[in-house]
Order: sequence, then structure tokens, then C-alpha cells
Amino acid sequence: MDKDELLGILQPESTKINQTMKQELATIENPLLAEVINYAIFNGGKRFRPILTIFCARACVINKIPEGFATEEELVAPDNLYRLATVFEYLHGASLLHDDVIDNAETRRGKTAANIKFGITPVILAGDFLHSLAMTLAGKIAGVGLQAAVGQAICAMIEAEFLQMQTAGRQLLSEENYFNVLRGKTGALIATACLSGGIYEQGADEKQLAALNLYGNALGLAFQVKDDLLDYLGDSGKTGKVVGNDFVEGKMTLPLIHALNQAPEKEKNRLLAILADKPEKRADHITEACDFIKKYQGFSYSEEMAQNLVETAVEALDIFSDSQARNILIKLSQYVLTREK
Amino acid sequence: MDKDELLGILQPESTKINQTMKQELATIENPLLAEVINYAIFNGGKRFRPILTIFCARACVINKIPEGFATEEELVAPDNLYRLATVFEYLHGASLLHDDVIDNAETRRGKTAANIKFGITPVILAGDFLHSLAMTLAGKIAGVGLQAAVGQAICAMIEAEFLQMQTAGRQLLSEENYFNVLRGKTGALIATACLSGGIYEQGADEKQLAALNLYGNALGLAFQVKDDLLDYLGDSGKTGKVVGNDFVEGKMTLPLIHALNQAPEKEKNRLLAILADKPEKRADHITEACDFIKKYQGFSYSEEMAQNLVETAVEALDIFSDSQARNILIKLSQYVLTREK
Repeated sequence: MDKDELLGILQPESTKINQTMKQELATIENPLLAEVINYAIFNGGKRFRPILTIFCARACVINKIPEGFATEEELVAPDNLYRLATVFEYLHGASLLHDDVIDNAETRRGKTAANIKFGITPVILAGDFLHSLAMTLAGKIAGVGLQAAVGQAICAMIEAEFLQMQTAGRQLLSEENYFNVLRGKTGALIATACLSGGIYEQGADEKQLAALNLYGNALGLAFQVKDDLLDYLGDSGKTGKVVGNDFVEGKMTLPLIHALNQAPEKEKNRLLAILADKPEKRADHITEACDFIKKYQGFSYSEEMAQNLVETAVEALDIFSDSQARNILIKLSQYVLTREK
Repeated sequence: MDKDELLGILQPESTKINQTMKQELATIENPLLAEVINYAIFNGGKRFRPILTIFCARACVINKIPEGFATEEELVAPDNLYRLATVFEYLHGASLLHDDVIDNAETRRGKTAANIKFGITPVILAGDFLHSLAMTLAGKIAGVGLQAAVGQAICAMIEAEFLQMQTAGRQLLSEENYFNVLRGKTGALIATACLSGGIYEQGADEKQLAALNLYGNALGLAFQVKDDLLDYLGDSGKTGKVVGNDFVEGKMTLPLIHALNQAPEKEKNRLLAILADKPEKRADHITEACDFIKKYQGFSYSEEMAQNLVETAVEALDIFSDSQARNILIKLSQYVLTREK
């Protein structure tokens, strides 16, 4: 299965996810609230999280297809599965809305950020609305067990944001700290999106649930490590972001953390001095920072780390029978490594 | 039962509610997150919502006390009931945190507002955390039915805030609009706090649930109508607020709405001109506004409305057997009318 084939399979799924969300959100009575939420949700996102829910559910049921059912898709009652899947897009949307208020963001995916377009009041409230909608849907469709898992993931996300806040401005961070923040901010919600597919209609046993959790966590971390690599090495024409933006913002990510931990005192101190300077000054030193990271294997180390994480994710799927769904989950995780934006 | 006797009964309940929250919140790992949440929750609040949950649960079970149980308190497994009750304090706290960010508030209950003390980032996130904690607890303790009711109440609150936002700045509002906003912003959550007592352990039948819903809605509206009256007529030494603050802020509440709808064109237009002026100008006209409202029965009409609402609330409790719990619910609603702050 090559990339085009994968995209060909995912395209109709994204469409169905979008249709499901349109239908759900059409029940919002207040026109301004509906406008803010539609603006935030229908922004060209790839629907990565809902797609994971759907294919994780299918990977579980394929193990127990009773006679008379032709395909895994037919077994999983589709409407409710898609509604469950949208929970994770709503939660993602809620957290982006609040993040944009917090960061005073100007743009999101090349469009004016919602906080600028509508002001912070409707955006904070719309985030709360999506948050509440998502948690209610999770409970209704998959029961209190999943609802509690979703609640836990949100709490983990917020604790991780606090951890990040407390270490912001520090130039020397451990890899452990980096991964702790990542696990909470990215891993937890993606893992819950995967888990929810398994929990849906009691499709999976304990072992399978643990495997989905492991897959989701590793995939989420790999995704973010790759994201942090693309910030330095990506083609800005494709990513839509300025190369070295994290460095200019003083955001400590794995390539830089690793290089700082490897470099001899003198070179390390020179980099720390640049990092302690003003952002506009740091912008003049992006090339130097890239050379430094390269010299001390920050890029190759991060690349290897992303590869290991993807391997972990793929291996976690070993316990599932061979199926198109499992195959897609494998391809999705491998795609994380080759993506250019 | 006089006021002191009522307070004497409620005091140990508030203490137990506070202890339950302290215990729950002690599990928060991040120290800054814990600090923000403790600051917001332990602020001298009266725990009005949790107290309603507890006594509504007791009013329901008293109807079916089996032999061997001495009192209504003994029948309702206390620990979980108190945990369920705290859901509504957490939700109330979450909404106050986000409201303070939105309003750029400087103080809350005489203390520096959390957004000023900690900055908006931790406060938005702490609100999200409380929100998630509350919804998860509701599901865990009382099942998806209540969790869905809580989700619906939150969505109603947000839709009402949008309705209010859209009519902000308009000087001519209908009573209907005023009550629609109130029902969403205040009534929905208080009604759900009452309902949840009935839903807890399947304590109540359909008729009782409808009665609790009616009681909570009417009580919530009465509370807010009285609040709006106190803004004009309260003793600022007791309320801690400047008299006529709503008028200065251009907030259209029932006394003013009624008077404007009753006054002849000329006087009405004079008031509308003042309302269209700058807030600092309006401050010079508070006495005039009070005289205007009095002349056109805005105060007496609102007082009567609050009384009718309390009567509706009390009558809704008719279907419950006589008990201390029912008695307290009645006294609580009557207290709304006599309170001075």
C-alpha cells in the first residue's frame, strides 16, 4: 500500500467524519456560537484522531467476525462509531481554541485565528461548549468507562501544560521532562482516541486495549518528535512555518535538548547565551543553531527516536489478526516518519 | 425553623462538602494547578448548589425508607452523595474562572481575581480542568444519564451567554429575553444540581424528578431576580457592591426593563439617552434611575416576580412526604427573598 492508496482509503472516511460533525453541530441554536465552532472545526484538518478511533475499532472486531458478516466495516455499527470518533476532533478543537487565546495567536492553518476573528469571549466559551459536547457524547455512546478515560486524558493534558509552563524559559531541560510533557499533551488524547475504538461495543479484550493504548501513545510521541524535527529541517513551502521557529521562540525540543546535553561546555554555553537573548536576536542565529544541533547529533538522534517509537507502535499491533484495518494503522504510523508537513 | 436554625443545620454540611473537595483536589499533582484551583474553590462560597443536591436526595429517599433505617441521612450512602454534590461546585468554579478572564475582573468576593493573581493561562486551563473533573465525577457516581444532563446544562449556560452577548448594548429588552438568559445562565445548572440528588441511586421516580427540576429552575430564577434587585436596593456595606453597579455597566435587568416598558415615551427616551452615554456619565444618574424605576413599579414588580417564583418552587415540593429535608428545601427558597447579600 503506497501513500496514494492509503489516502484513497482515508478520504471517504474523512468525508463521513465531516458529515457526522456537520449534522451534530447543526443542532446548535445560537448562530454566533455555531459560526465560531464551525470556523474552528472545519479548518482543513486531517481528522487524524477520529480516523484512529475508526480503524482501531475495526482492527478489534475483525478478530471475532461471526458468520454472515462479510467485512469488518459491516460489523461495527457505523453511525455511532463515527459519532464516537468525532469526540476526539471536538476535544482537539476545544484545546486549539483555548491555546490560541492563551498564545494570543494570529493565525491557525493559514487562516486568521478564531480569537482574532471573533474576540476572546466567544472563543473561550465555544471551547467550553465543544469540551462539554465531547464528554457528553463519549458517555452516551461508549458508557462511563470511556467517559472517565476521556476525562483522565484531558486532566493529563492540562497537567502537562502546567509542567511545560513551569519549565518555560529554562534552557537546560532533560529528555525526561520533554517526554513527560509530550505524553500528557499529545500522547494521552491520541491513546484515548485509539482505546475508544476498542471500548466501543465491548469490541476488545484487556490485552487488546493495552495494545491500543501502547500504539496510541507511541504514535502520538513519534508524531510530535517528527513535528519538532520538521520545525528545523522542513521545507517551509510545505510546512507553512518559518524554519527554526521553535528556536526563535525559545521552545526547547528534542534535537536541541539532545545536542546541548552532548556538546562540550564551551559550545554549550555559547548556545545557552543565544537562547537567553531576545527572540529577535535569536532569529539571526538559526543557521548556527542548526549546525550545532547537527554537529552533536540532535537531528539523527531525534530521527532514530521517532523510528523507535513507530516500531513500538507497529509491534503493539502484532496481537491483532491480519486485516485491512490493522494494515492501515501500521501505514499511518509509518507515514508519520515520511511526512513532509 | 428560623434563619439561625437553618444555618445551624447547613454549617456541618458545608464543612463536609469542603472536606470532600479538599480530599479530591489533593490528588492534583502539579503544584501551580493545585494552587489556582484551591484559590478559586475555597473562597468563602456558601456551597448553595451542593447543598441542594444533598437535600434533594434526602427528600426523595424519605418516601421509601425501609425498616431498620432510622433517618434519611443514613439511607443515602453519604460519601458518594457528597462527591456527587461537589460536581456542581466544581462546575460553578470553572465558569467563574472563565468569566473572570472574559470580564477581565479585578476582584472576586473581595479577593484579587484569579486571572490577576495568576495570569490568564493558568486560569483558563484550571477552568478546563475543573470542568473535566466535574463531568467525569458525574458519570462515575451517577451514570451516563446524569452526565448527559450535566452536559446539557453546560451547553445551555453557554448558549445563554451567547444570547446575552448578542443583546449586550441594546437598551430595550423584553422580559422574555431577560428570563431566557437567566434560565440558561443560572436556572439550568441549579436545576441539574437538584435533579442529580434525585437521580442518585435511582432515588426518585419520574414525577419527583420533574418536581426537582421545576423547583431548581424556579429557585435559580428567584435567586437571580433578587440579586438584580439587591444591586439597586441593597446595602453596599452588606453586599460588598456599589449600589446601581448594573446600571453603570449598562446591564439591563428586570427592574429597569419593566420600568422602561411601562414609562411614557418622553421619560423612557430620557432614560435611554442616559443608558446610551458613557459608563462614567451614567454613574452620575444612579439616583435618577432609581427614582424612575420606582415610579414605574420596576422594584415592586420584580419583588413580586421573585415571590411568585419562590411560591412555584415551594409548591413543586408538595409531592414529597414531610421531612426535615423537604423543610430545608422550602426554607432555602424562602431565604432567597429575605437575604440581604
